[in-house]
Amino acid sequence: MLQFDFKKRVRYAETDKMGYLYYGHYAKYYEIGRVETMRSIGINYKDLEDLHKIMLPVLSLNTRYLAPAYYDELLTIRSFIDTLPDKMISFRHEILNEKMEIINNADVKLFFVDMETGKRMSAPEVLKDKFKIHF
Amino acid sequence: MLQFDFKKRVRYAETDKMGYLYYGHYAKYYEIGRVETMRSIGINYKDLEDLHKIMLPVLSLNTRYLAPAYYDELLTIRSFIDTLPDKMISFRHEILNEKMEIINNADVKLFFVDMETGKRMSAPEVLKDKFKIHF
Amino acid sequence: MLQFDFKKRVRYAETDKMGYLYYGHYAKYYEIGRVETMRSIGINYKDLEDLHKIMLPVLSLNTRYLAPAYYDELLTIRSFIDTLPDKMISFRHEILNEKMEIINNADVKLFFVDMETGKRMSAPEVLKDKFKIHF
Amino acid sequence: MLQFDFKKRVRYAETDKMGYLYYGHYAKYYEIGRVETMRSIGINYKDLEDLHKIMLPVLSLNTRYLAPAYYDELLTIRSFIDTLPDKMISFRHEILNEKMEIINNADVKLFFVDMETGKRMSAPEVLKDKFKIHF
Repeated sequence: MLQFDFKKRVRYAETDKMGYLYYGHYAKYYEIGRVETMRSIGINYKDLEDLHKIMLPVLSLNTRYLAPAYYDELLTIRSFIDTLPDKMISFRHEILNEKMEIINNADVKLFFVDMETGKRMSAPEVLKDKFKIHF
Repeated sequence: MLQFDFKKRVRYAETDKMGYLYYGHYAKYYEIGRVETMRSIGINYKDLEDLHKIMLPVLSLNTRYLAPAYYDELLTIRSFIDTLPDKMISFRHEILNEKMEIINNADVKLFFVDMETGKRMSAPEVLKDKFKIHF
Repeated sequence: MLQFDFKKRVRYAETDKMGYLYYGHYAKYYEIGRVETMRSIGINYKDLEDLHKIMLPVLSLNTRYLAPAYYDELLTIRSFIDTLPDKMISFRHEILNEKMEIINNADVKLFFVDMETGKRMSAPEVLKDKFKIHF
Repeated sequence: MLQFDFKKRVRYAETDKMGYLYYGHYAKYYEIGRVETMRSIGINYKDLEDLHKIMLPVLSLNTRYLAPAYYDELLTIRSFIDTLPDKMISFRHEILNEKMEIINNADVKLFFVDMETGKRMSAPEVLKDKFKIHF
């Protein structure tokens, strides 16, 4: 299993008139969580697209909002990968507030697309190799 | 059951470097779907907040991305309410492209908060009355 | 001179904790204004990119916020083109609230880029022809 | 004069189909620049609102786009305050790419509003005192 924490502050642009982090912006937090988790084990998502011509569209997103996040809070995006990527890659996320209470959790599944053929593919070796060390 | 269609065009601001409608922006489409569905039966969400001091935070969001949406497409946000609002209100959404293919579906659950006490409450009568006619 | 009005409603996603339309979202309103103004005279911006391989990056944006816009307001995006596009294209915008008071005005200048060479170019004939009729 | 640098990475959510950081998202970068600049001299914008009941709406924004920013670039938001805040506060910003080339510059003017009366006011002493040390 792989676990990684990344901090991000809630910006004014992301609040809504309730004074909360708008529910639609959490998807961006998960994006940051998964990209930084991959970077932490030596996978640069930008290189996957630019060098390996593989992109990872999102297949599904399931998220539960347990408590609000507020302006200027320094949130922790905690990301987990429980199983080795194969047909797809599954991220599990928890968002924690400054008191380290879990305020949101989510599952995001992505798949692999060969950008040159537009066809779906399995996880490339270059990515699996980096993950295997952690499982 | 209640069903309502609302059209929204994909804007440049909402695309990403894949050329797709970014997966995080769908939450805004569901927001538009539920607000316009309520408006269609005489419920103004702004009045719920301003006059009745009731707000509807989101509890959960489950969404599946079946096919991409592209720049300038005039999407249809199809919203369904299958059960009368009570402890919470559940919206089901389908996003359709210009060929009227379903490219995304989602479930969004919201609950009711009394803005003066900050406490959770059941669906207010003012809202249930408007819904009952359609069930 | 060319003038065109387009309506857009302020969504929850676009408000901030002040209860205002966030100042950064106006840029999206100008985008909508210019694209719909062009569509109104038969220019499809998507076709400019897809068929003619010309894109229009933004060169500068000057905007003054005169009064706030609020949640659920149906704003009018009023767009003006005062001079024929040549080296660049200049849009002038006014945002009006439901009382038809001007709450914001802006100037946006864009230039033309040949997407195949990446080089800057003058306004293409296909675009100038459509504009000329209105000047 | 006061100058402060803050780093922010371009996220997928912020790119558009040109592959650029969308022109409308720069406003959020300026927001981050001014809030972090104030934090660097001991002013917490959140406290200004919560404790001192003063908010700073934006009056005007002038920005020039010199070159694009791309996905995953770690940009530098360079913020300058050239004059002591009085009737308003003026921020000047430069956005630099990883090669430390200036790709964007901007002027943002904000004013002070007493949140209890809704009236415009001059810069509060609590804020001026923190700035004076640097001028």
